[in-house]
Amino acid sequence: MKIALGVAYLGTNFHGWQCQKPNIRTVQQVVEQALSSVANHPVRVFCSGRTDAGVHATCQVIHFETNIKRENKVWLFGGNANLPSDVNFTWVKHVNDNFHARFSAIARQYNYKIHNTKVRCSIITAHSLWESKKLDIMAMNKASKYLIGKHNFSAFRGSLCQAKSSIKTIEFIKLNKCDDNILLDIKADAFLHHMVRNIVGTLLKVGKGEKSIEWVKEILDNKQRKQAAPAAPSHGLYFIKAFYSNL
Amino acid sequence: MKIALGVAYLGTNFHGWQCQKPNIRTVQQVVEQALSSVANHPVRVFCSGRTDAGVHATCQVIHFETNIKRENKVWLFGGNANLPSDVNFTWVKHVNDNFHARFSAIARQYNYKIHNTKVRCSIITAHSLWESKKLDIMAMNKASKYLIGKHNFSAFRGSLCQAKSSIKTIEFIKLNKCDDNILLDIKADAFLHHMVRNIVGTLLKVGKGEKSIEWVKEILDNKQRKQAAPAAPSHGLYFIKAFYSNL
Repeated sequence: MKIALGVAYLGTNFHGWQCQKPNIRTVQQVVEQALSSVANHPVRVFCSGRTDAGVHATCQVIHFETNIKRENKVWLFGGNANLPSDVNFTWVKHVNDNFHARFSAIARQYNYKIHNTKVRCSIITAHSLWESKKLDIMAMNKASKYLIGKHNFSAFRGSLCQAKSSIKTIEFIKLNKCDDNILLDIKADAFLHHMVRNIVGTLLKVGKGEKSIEWVKEILDNKQRKQAAPAAPSHGLYFIKAFYSNL
Repeated sequence: MKIALGVAYLGTNFHGWQCQKPNIRTVQQVVEQALSSVANHPVRVFCSGRTDAGVHATCQVIHFETNIKRENKVWLFGGNANLPSDVNFTWVKHVNDNFHARFSAIARQYNYKIHNTKVRCSIITAHSLWESKKLDIMAMNKASKYLIGKHNFSAFRGSLCQAKSSIKTIEFIKLNKCDDNILLDIKADAFLHHMVRNIVGTLLKVGKGEKSIEWVKEILDNKQRKQAAPAAPSHGLYFIKAFYSNL
């Protein structure tokens, strides 16, 4: 049978999602260890979207297969008891055999947090980007409109990206400010490697007044990665949700 | 001349405030290094209240002496540029020669954060205590009333406490809940070693229904540390503010 779970984690002390070398701490590794302990057999998990080193998640979605029958609460609470303090399962659900955390996902949502103050705040900026120059949110919002819809996002694609196509569809990009905290909320069918961080880095150039609003359209049209801004750092990025029609 | 500064820090990766052995990372050590860089001479700082390993601060107050003339913004921004990402100065002010961060302080305020959910949340509980059992805030609030005012707090005193007297005056203890987050707000003229964490640990026993409201009065009256509950963990504790009549 197939079981799906929601996973939350603070990415700070992880080298991203995916298992790499034996001594590299990854979320996949600790999640597989925890579920293997509950299942009493080796468990292999599949996720909705691999996150980079330092990126957080409030609801990554995973699935795995097992023949062991356990109540949902045993997978949830037993799993959490076997996880380190910076990861936890948020929910658990039995799913159909045709469900796949990655291939069944029809959309993904990310948030990016920015703390926009003249004086740095070490507590907030542990998990938000600090930007000391006052950002023009109106300009960033206007510039982001060029990216909404179906486009070739080659200009926002990381060099290690393995996606077959760079054509993706962004459903929305919303930027909101509450006191000194700015939240960028973005949803698309799928994202290329580093795509959210490259978009944030580019919008920051507009927000700081270094580039015009129209510059974002030029970058998108030119499809040249080197023309866009550097990626925003990973510690402000949160994988919020994966969407399914069959979950 | 004497200069005072506000200091904020995330205590997670510090062995507390006070300088200890050379290879132990403390807040005092990195703050003295940063100010020494700006002053261009060795700087010794004094703080309003030493915090333990893992305890955070939103506004610790410090002072130091120097003959070097610098604008306030140079101490603030130059200091911050020389501090690691988990510490920052929040403000700077020239003070009178009779000011002392520790001995001039007339009161201190701490907050303790609790996340009260059945399922653990790794992101929030990185810097809040997680409690899975539903807490009775009303009972905790009632029990806390016994502690308000001038008392001998020997029952809530850590074994390593160096204070001359265990008689302190608590001005208020407030417990508020917003969604699943509980905030305990406490202010006193001064606190004994581990006093806030011992009070929180004791109130948690009442909140969980393991002990009666009146039990807190018994502990206070008996003055026996071993009768109170274990200290609540340090990662939920925040040093919020020090109060002065001459700052």
